[in-house]
Amino acid sequence: MAEPVISLKPLPLTCERFAPFGDVIEASRSQAAAMNEARFDRFDDLCSVDVGSDGRVSVSVARCRAATALPLRIDKLERHPLGSQAFVPLQACETVIVVAPPGESVDVSDLRAFVTQPRQGFNYHLGTWHMPLIALSVGHEFLVVDRGGPEANCEEVVLDDVVILEAF
Amino acid sequence: MAEPVISLKPLPLTCERFAPFGDVIEASRSQAAAMNEARFDRFDDLCSVDVGSDGRVSVSVARCRAATALPLRIDKLERHPLGSQAFVPLQACETVIVVAPPGESVDVSDLRAFVTQPRQGFNYHLGTWHMPLIALSVGHEFLVVDRGGPEANCEEVVLDDVVILEAF
Repeated sequence: MAEPVISLKPLPLTCERFAPFGDVIEASRSQAAAMNEARFDRFDDLCSVDVGSDGRVSVSVARCRAATALPLRIDKLERHPLGSQAFVPLQACETVIVVAPPGESVDVSDLRAFVTQPRQGFNYHLGTWHMPLIALSVGHEFLVVDRGGPEANCEEVVLDDVVILEAF
Repeated sequence: MAEPVISLKPLPLTCERFAPFGDVIEASRSQAAAMNEARFDRFDDLCSVDVGSDGRVSVSVARCRAATALPLRIDKLERHPLGSQAFVPLQACETVIVVAPPGESVDVSDLRAFVTQPRQGFNYHLGTWHMPLIALSVGHEFLVVDRGGPEANCEEVVLDDVVILEAF
């Protein structure tokens, strides 16, 4: 008997859809405040950075050296039990993310896939299950804001089902 | 008698030159670690985020709505007594920054001006005096990582001297 296949079709990323999993980081959605004598519009507090009471914030850059093509079989997810993790594109580029709600295990029926708009970033809340970051083109860069420190902060779960992330 | 003019010529931003004032945020300078099964190079811990023991980290976007042309007379600087403040360009673009070392006052002979490379960000350490952010083109965006919260966290000093930031 053929194995059943779970097909995930990415939906456009919006704050409402992403609310159970984290924050959408984008300048367009919130009211801007003037800054520096109105030379800038400032869009404040676009995500909730959570590194615990004893954590420190780490700022890093992730640069794609091997692009990912879709469709893609997803065989595992990861979560960070000690902190949130934000990714902001450093050029206009789309990417695709897959998430599941926090919890001890992952029910594949809870998986959701999203495609970002070219200037959208995203912040996984502490404990949100997610597919490890992919990029669609070599050289794409993301600024990463997450928790630094020596403590183990990445847990993985292997998916028993055959889950296919479809092209968008 | 004509007022003496202090002329600041921006130098290319480098880690060494900027060390007394903060961190240069760039992916090229540090050894990369492989991430996500080598699909990415990750450049870790590119700046020191300092929001004090009681502060929280704020992630914002600043978008230029009025470009600044050089030469520019600089009449004031600001500092943030409660936290660091990082700016990372969200597109390849140069900008010019002016800094002076932390301290109760500013000696204009200590002023330094730098021009960034198109992918460089920068992080002002707590207390570093700096010119309010400028951008050279409308629409340029910077991700801002600094301290959120209601406490007053911006102090200004007016420069008595005539200080001109020159074109680069």
